[in-house]
Amino acid sequence: MSTTDQPVPAQPGTPATLPTDALGFAVPSTVPTHWYNLNADLPEPVPPHLHPGTHEPLVPDDLAPLFPMALIAQEVSTERYIEIPAAVREIYSLWRPSPLIRAHRLERVLGTGARIYYKYEGVSPVGSHKPNTAVAQVYYNAIEGITRLTTETGAGQWGASLSMACSMLGLTCEVWQVRASYDSKPYRRYQMETYGSVCHPSPSDLTASGRAMLAADPDTTGSLGMAISEAVEVAAGDPKAHYSLGSVLNHVMLHQSVIGQEVLVQLAEAGERQADIAFGCAGGGSNLAGLTFPLIGQNLREGTTTRVVACEPAACPSITQGEYRYDFGDVAGLTPLLKMHTLGKDFVPPAIHAGGLRYHGMAPMVSHAVNLGLMSAVAIEQDDAFAAGVVFARAEGVVPAPESTHAVAAALDYARTAADGEVIVIGLSGNGVLDLPAYAAYV
Amino acid sequence: MSTTDQPVPAQPGTPATLPTDALGFAVPSTVPTHWYNLNADLPEPVPPHLHPGTHEPLVPDDLAPLFPMALIAQEVSTERYIEIPAAVREIYSLWRPSPLIRAHRLERVLGTGARIYYKYEGVSPVGSHKPNTAVAQVYYNAIEGITRLTTETGAGQWGASLSMACSMLGLTCEVWQVRASYDSKPYRRYQMETYGSVCHPSPSDLTASGRAMLAADPDTTGSLGMAISEAVEVAAGDPKAHYSLGSVLNHVMLHQSVIGQEVLVQLAEAGERQADIAFGCAGGGSNLAGLTFPLIGQNLREGTTTRVVACEPAACPSITQGEYRYDFGDVAGLTPLLKMHTLGKDFVPPAIHAGGLRYHGMAPMVSHAVNLGLMSAVAIEQDDAFAAGVVFARAEGVVPAPESTHAVAAALDYARTAADGEVIVIGLSGNGVLDLPAYAAYV
Repeated sequence: MSTTDQPVPAQPGTPATLPTDALGFAVPSTVPTHWYNLNADLPEPVPPHLHPGTHEPLVPDDLAPLFPMALIAQEVSTERYIEIPAAVREIYSLWRPSPLIRAHRLERVLGTGARIYYKYEGVSPVGSHKPNTAVAQVYYNAIEGITRLTTETGAGQWGASLSMACSMLGLTCEVWQVRASYDSKPYRRYQMETYGSVCHPSPSDLTASGRAMLAADPDTTGSLGMAISEAVEVAAGDPKAHYSLGSVLNHVMLHQSVIGQEVLVQLAEAGERQADIAFGCAGGGSNLAGLTFPLIGQNLREGTTTRVVACEPAACPSITQGEYRYDFGDVAGLTPLLKMHTLGKDFVPPAIHAGGLRYHGMAPMVSHAVNLGLMSAVAIEQDDAFAAGVVFARAEGVVPAPESTHAVAAALDYARTAADGEVIVIGLSGNGVLDLPAYAAYV
Repeated sequence: MSTTDQPVPAQPGTPATLPTDALGFAVPSTVPTHWYNLNADLPEPVPPHLHPGTHEPLVPDDLAPLFPMALIAQEVSTERYIEIPAAVREIYSLWRPSPLIRAHRLERVLGTGARIYYKYEGVSPVGSHKPNTAVAQVYYNAIEGITRLTTETGAGQWGASLSMACSMLGLTCEVWQVRASYDSKPYRRYQMETYGSVCHPSPSDLTASGRAMLAADPDTTGSLGMAISEAVEVAAGDPKAHYSLGSVLNHVMLHQSVIGQEVLVQLAEAGERQADIAFGCAGGGSNLAGLTFPLIGQNLREGTTTRVVACEPAACPSITQGEYRYDFGDVAGLTPLLKMHTLGKDFVPPAIHAGGLRYHGMAPMVSHAVNLGLMSAVAIEQDDAFAAGVVFARAEGVVPAPESTHAVAAALDYARTAADGEVIVIGLSGNGVLDLPAYAAYV
């Protein structure tokens, strides 16, 4: 990672002296200094991504049209700790470390003798964990001279996060949003526009892949897989543009590891020896991996016995119902082949409220961890998830994101019969402020 | 405050052992232990509230139908520090201390040599500073056996905050929301409903005062003054109910003092001798007072020279254009007479986006401080406020609440010509996540 000490380009209209590593802003020592890479501790390496044409393992040049070299290197790295560039760490410090909060009131409502903690990523400016990787990805693109990023987004958390990071580091950003969310949940689009981004509904008529999808089904509500195809196509056609993905890939899991690393420190500060069990919601896998890979790594290195549960929606059950095989990340087949739990690239999930969990596949590293027996999985019905979200909100104040309620539901079920003194950790990937209509409809 | 160590009643359906002072939850030492009361340090006492019938200073019994005795005592207290009950402090610790953040990127965008800090209250579960007093008010009502609270709300931050506090401490909550916001901004209502509250548009046909207002103008968009009349009327008619006010009154200013007390500690930790100037938005006055009264108190006691600027909307300029005289807090004239800057109780502000600043009057303690020359005031046009909010969001990530953008606009104006090394503090009363349509319309 020797490229991390170069200045970032100036934001349009501002002096060419934006925050860089050289500025030396004081960052609290409680913000992690390195990302943790589970690949260093796995008993078997994660299966490589394959070239979609040759079905041979990817080489770095295959990815160069879409990603900066630093991220391509991180994608296959087996280093245990990778230093976080100072400019990224300084932006992290605006909301990190995120709080790990003992859920005293929730414990009492449940009548459990277990100790429940929740790790709350909703304190970030966009209200979710997504900026942890957005800031890193934008930074590495910026120092390689890229000025424009494209991406897809479902409910919009990722698009808003990448938009925020681009506005803070001086890049332009163009987002294809799944039409179901674009039409029904405009607030995230407004957020992207406030940060200066452009947001299109997907499929759109701006790309060949989008036009083909519209020709096949003019009334399609879209999917993450379709939106990925469009964003990749546009980035591949512009030498100053790259593509950015908010989940699934190994380097995204890496960046999110700040969540779980903080949990380890915060649990120790709270006097806990270990988390006995940790619940994370699973869509593409990034929040789950960020929360739990550092805990799994501790299990592998130090013999702790933390159990990890991936909590996915029953409407999109890639781990519990999908096959573990190579599949495309998108609908059009433009991405590399990824070894993952998949419902098939053409699977279009129903329009559940947890838009961030509507993905046909699962991160290869999460899939691999499941396959190795390092974590288990459970599928949660939407109504059960909302019921748990309401119990949580009324006890703890925070209204969890619909995605996060899947982890809450599984944790509440577990806590009701947990032994006294068990330590339960819930990953609260974000807040549900922009999903309040769904809560109101449920209530 | 000898009443603060009694248990709170149980939440419906849960064991009668909800969080109380006796539980001994560990609360970080960084959460303030006492509220600060500016009344102890003022060179002249704040003018008393008057009985609306007799025009004599209020006695405690006058307020007893609406407020618990602990809050009535705080309303007239001249003690400098009042201990925060442990149960309140424990809930504060879910999001307090709120961050004081150095706005490095914003400084660079402005090209200023000043050091800009913002105190960010948007990390609370509802995204604003309002829970600081909501939790305290609900607590004191709970320990006096009150089971139902009524209140008014404008944009909805206050109604959502009181709803949250009631759900966490086991009371029911009924909210009258200004119709303009009820109709155009339903998310806060959904938030109240998620916490289990009932929300009515105001004026409503549920109260005599509401029916009278509807008879006078069936198409009225409502106002905070009208909604207060309705909530007060209902509380006065139910012996188990009290009324709760989210701003204006002295005890509300007291509870919000945690903001400014934390700022003093956090500035010292950052190596700053003092804030040279602090900007807070001013509607009813609670965020402004919370941020700045501890700073003014330090000026009065220790000779620091922090200047304080109240930033109000040009569309509702109670300090800069109103009269300083006794007036009612509501339209129907049900409240005590308060000595304050007022545009007249019948003034109906235009439907600006900063709904939380649409109030005809100003907190008596803020008005008194202005009158004594302890702070100045400036009126900000809505477009200038949004422009500043966008600059702030794109530099710092956080999208400020429309209310907060008034303070941001004044601070940015000041910073452009500030001397190198000046320390500027901006009160960011909340985030603008639920106001993104207004931002999108502006962008």
